[in-house]
Amino acid sequence: MVDKTQTHRLRFRPHFKTHQSHAIGQWFRDEGVTAITVSSASMGLYFAQDGWEDITLAFPVNLAEMDRINRLAKRVHLNLVVESATAIQYLQQHLQYPVGIYVKIDVGAGRTGLSPTDLPQLEQLAQMLQGANRMHWKGWLAHAGNTYSCRSQQDIIRMHEHALLQLTTLKAHFSPTFPQLEISLGDTPSASVAPHFEGIDELRPGVFVFYDLMQYGIGSCNWEDQALCLACPIVALHPERLEVVVYGGAVHLSKEAWTTDTGQQHFGQIVELTGTGWSASAIPDTRLSRLSQEHGIIQTSKEHFSRFKLGQWLGVLPVHACLTANAMGGYYHLSGQPIDHLNGRRFNPDQE
Amino acid sequence: MVDKTQTHRLRFRPHFKTHQSHAIGQWFRDEGVTAITVSSASMGLYFAQDGWEDITLAFPVNLAEMDRINRLAKRVHLNLVVESATAIQYLQQHLQYPVGIYVKIDVGAGRTGLSPTDLPQLEQLAQMLQGANRMHWKGWLAHAGNTYSCRSQQDIIRMHEHALLQLTTLKAHFSPTFPQLEISLGDTPSASVAPHFEGIDELRPGVFVFYDLMQYGIGSCNWEDQALCLACPIVALHPERLEVVVYGGAVHLSKEAWTTDTGQQHFGQIVELTGTGWSASAIPDTRLSRLSQEHGIIQTSKEHFSRFKLGQWLGVLPVHACLTANAMGGYYHLSGQPIDHLNGRRFNPDQE
Repeated sequence: MVDKTQTHRLRFRPHFKTHQSHAIGQWFRDEGVTAITVSSASMGLYFAQDGWEDITLAFPVNLAEMDRINRLAKRVHLNLVVESATAIQYLQQHLQYPVGIYVKIDVGAGRTGLSPTDLPQLEQLAQMLQGANRMHWKGWLAHAGNTYSCRSQQDIIRMHEHALLQLTTLKAHFSPTFPQLEISLGDTPSASVAPHFEGIDELRPGVFVFYDLMQYGIGSCNWEDQALCLACPIVALHPERLEVVVYGGAVHLSKEAWTTDTGQQHFGQIVELTGTGWSASAIPDTRLSRLSQEHGIIQTSKEHFSRFKLGQWLGVLPVHACLTANAMGGYYHLSGQPIDHLNGRRFNPDQE
Repeated sequence: MVDKTQTHRLRFRPHFKTHQSHAIGQWFRDEGVTAITVSSASMGLYFAQDGWEDITLAFPVNLAEMDRINRLAKRVHLNLVVESATAIQYLQQHLQYPVGIYVKIDVGAGRTGLSPTDLPQLEQLAQMLQGANRMHWKGWLAHAGNTYSCRSQQDIIRMHEHALLQLTTLKAHFSPTFPQLEISLGDTPSASVAPHFEGIDELRPGVFVFYDLMQYGIGSCNWEDQALCLACPIVALHPERLEVVVYGGAVHLSKEAWTTDTGQQHFGQIVELTGTGWSASAIPDTRLSRLSQEHGIIQTSKEHFSRFKLGQWLGVLPVHACLTANAMGGYYHLSGQPIDHLNGRRFNPDQE
């Protein structure tokens, strides 16, 4: 991703909500990355603590976090995201330090942001930002989350082209009055497969750092790009229904499901752990078919059932790596090295 | 639940995996409860640390946790659950302290346990347990998780009766040789609504401590019995599609969905926070319709849209309280008092 953003002359501002880790942040720093994206002021403070100084909080500004926003703005170059006059007014009254501002544009995901064709409202915000104290309007920010419905690279590229068209048209409309405005775009599918980024200034992908089954299914990555695996011990075997039960449930994986092309819903695919990693391919005809709080039920086939032994550790490739990382609150590198996560410092039963 | 178990002369051994809290454990202690259930040795150690001395680990014994199991068995009266000869053999070799043993019976949930009619296998385990060192066979343990498919009290009672019939028949079969065997049963729906527990010795409900939308939908509780609510701030309003966006997503609620009688799927219902609690009923025609990592999208109606203001806090009644509590890693009592959770000690952005 570093190479790609350099080739396309884009500022690379990776989203750190996926890994939420100081140690993994360091891997980015080693590649020359200096600007990052987070999803809450709290997460921003976690990375500020580790020396990050250029942070975009890519979430419609959460007025309930105003105190933390001010503490963060005092400490780092902070960019906030707005999508309403109310939010701008509130910031105008409560901001104590200068921040950069991006206006959120909805390029089709329908989650947050203003329509790029809603010119009356966009003009109103532009006017407010022009005269605002402590708010330096930097540009437009979008997340083409609609690419998550794609199932091929062609689909992703088509949606990406549509996002580019909307954003560059918007930029052109405002450029006579506001020539400085940038465009910040961020979604892993487009960032991974799109061949060009004409008119874009900044890229903010997040989950690409691990990828996962969902990204593989969307068409963002190859199978072997998946870098996060949950180790689960087998606690029960049920040959009569070809099921293997692991300790590994909704509290570890969340309940994000994936539906395959053949209509099978599952919560993860199963790999064999090798001691230094995991098998190159998933165990065939086998999937994590049901989850309760801490139980995971793996459905397998007659042919493969005999591979599974009580007490053995299996690898689960999660549907959504961000949720699994967040639920676990920590990682181990394949070298055995522990890696931090913002949610760490759980009760450690082995250190009392 | 204390009154009910006393009336029916049952040992009350609540499952603490729902709250995972020392403080809430104390509420049970105040009611005279001395025996508890947990789902991992790690969780058992958390409660042993707080002085609990009679703990059943109601999960097929996880051989990967043998070291913790031994540390726990050294410290408390520990009961383990087995469902295979392999597990018993392993325990025979690795147990360092005496434990109680329950054999897991599947009364219809199809998750873990042996069929109560699989007499050859049950007899085999019985023989092994009879001669085993450090393992004191206490009885049969079942969780009628199939009640989770119910949608009325009548359904729950019917399934409960079926579970009782299977378990008492099993007990009768073994009683000439093993007259001491008890039956331990645990699922919140049956524990909440069943009128009798003939032949049962112990009850292990868990989620009843909070209840939730799923339990309400199953028929386990009344609406006002729901005791866990996630406070989420509004970060965006989209009148054009009658949507309200909150900071509150899959990392806070997991992705447990509920499908209503009218076929609508949602991730929670919305209540108004009152400062000392929340509104008696949910906001009508309004539901948490979509979740991404940290965004929650609330779908509402034209009539109710104007209630929602940017920056306002809303209450989300979760579908599955155990998962929300686990994801949040802590609580506030309505009095404002913080309440611990095993997953606590996250990064605190306000105490650096």
